[in-house]
Amino acid sequence: MLNKEYINGVYLVIGESACGGKDLESIVEASLHAGLCCVQLREKEADTRTFLNRAKALKSILKGTGIPFLINDRIDIALAAQADGVHIGQSDMPYETARRLLGPQAIIGLSVESWDDVKTAQNLDVSYLGVSPVFDTPTKTDTKTAWGLEGLSRIRKASKHPLVAIGGIDKENARQVVQAGAHAIAVVSAICSAANPEEATRALNQAGF
Amino acid sequence: MLNKEYINGVYLVIGESACGGKDLESIVEASLHAGLCCVQLREKEADTRTFLNRAKALKSILKGTGIPFLINDRIDIALAAQADGVHIGQSDMPYETARRLLGPQAIIGLSVESWDDVKTAQNLDVSYLGVSPVFDTPTKTDTKTAWGLEGLSRIRKASKHPLVAIGGIDKENARQVVQAGAHAIAVVSAICSAANPEEATRALNQAGF
Repeated sequence: MLNKEYINGVYLVIGESACGGKDLESIVEASLHAGLCCVQLREKEADTRTFLNRAKALKSILKGTGIPFLINDRIDIALAAQADGVHIGQSDMPYETARRLLGPQAIIGLSVESWDDVKTAQNLDVSYLGVSPVFDTPTKTDTKTAWGLEGLSRIRKASKHPLVAIGGIDKENARQVVQAGAHAIAVVSAICSAANPEEATRALNQAGF
Repeated sequence: MLNKEYINGVYLVIGESACGGKDLESIVEASLHAGLCCVQLREKEADTRTFLNRAKALKSILKGTGIPFLINDRIDIALAAQADGVHIGQSDMPYETARRLLGPQAIIGLSVESWDDVKTAQNLDVSYLGVSPVFDTPTKTDTKTAWGLEGLSRIRKASKHPLVAIGGIDKENARQVVQAGAHAIAVVSAICSAANPEEATRALNQAGF
C-alpha cells in the first residue's frame, strides 16, 4: 500500500458512540456505494472482544472493494482483524513503534495537532497526516486548538504528506476544506448521524470533489 | 517460557487506578525484594502512550530479575514494550488470536469465570488459568460470581493448568486459597494499597507459601 493516491475523497470514521444506536455495518454498506476513499473504525469504550468482532465485520464488508480499512489507535485489533493499517494520534503508540509492529506495507495515518507535529512528521514515512481538528467539533473532546482553513493551507504548503482533514466538516464547508489543501475529508457525524448515510456521502462527494 | 514453574507465589497486579496516586514503580521495586512470581500491568483508563511508557518503565525495573512481566489485555502494548506476555479475560482477544500474535514463547494467562471456560481451556496451551474472582472484591466490577474456595478446589481437580487465584485475597485468607489449589495468589490492593508494600508482600508470602 505504498501508493497514496487512495487518499482522495470522503473518508468515513465510524464507531458505536457516533452512531447513536444505529447499526454500523448498515451505515458502511450504504455509504460505500456513494463513494468512500477510506473507512476507519474508532472505538474508545468497547472491550477488546467487541472491538475485534466489529472490526472483522467491517473488514468483511469492505473486502474486495479496494477501500482501505483502518483501526483507530489499537494495533492489536488491526493485526487480529487483518486491517490495512491504523490511524494514530499523538497520545497513541509512537509512529516508529506502530510501523515496526505493522510492517512496511501497512497504512499508518498520523494526526497532527501542532506545528511541531507537522515538522516531526516530515522525517516519517507516514501514509497521510490527519489535520485534526480543522474546525471545532463536539465529536472529539481531547484535541487541541482547531487548525482552521488557514492552518490547513499552511500545512499543505509545508508538508510532503497527503492530508486528511477532520473535525466539523459537512457538505456546507467541504469545498473550502478541499480548496484549502485537504486531499481527503474525514467525517463522523455528517454520515453516521445522517438519516440517509448514502445520500449524505454523495452530497459530501459532490460538494468537495 | 514453556516452563510453568514460575507460577508459584505472590503475583502482583498493578495499575494507576489501584495505586491511589502512589508511584507504581516504587511499589514494584519495594515488593519485588519481598518475593514476587509475576507482575501484571493493568490499565483500563490510560491512553496508549501512557500505558506503553508505564509498561516500559516496569519492564526496565524487572529486567534481569527473572520475574515475568505481563500486560493485561493489550497485546499491542505487550509487543511494543517487549513484555513476557499477556493476561487476557473472556472479553479480551480470543486466546488463539493472542497466541498467534505473540508467538509460542509468550506467557498467556486466561481468566476463567465459568465452568465452560475451564472446560474450553483444557484444549488450549495457556500458561495458567486466572481463577477470577475467588472472592468478591471491589477492585474488579465486571466479573461474574465468585468461585469461592470450593470452586477453586474443583478447578484444581479438573484442570491441567497452573492456577492463579485472584479477587479478595489478603494475608488472612492466603493460606486457605493455596490449600484449596492455587499455585499463585494474585493481589491488587493487598499490596498497592498497603502503607508498606514490601512488608505486605512478605506477609502474603509467609501466609501463603
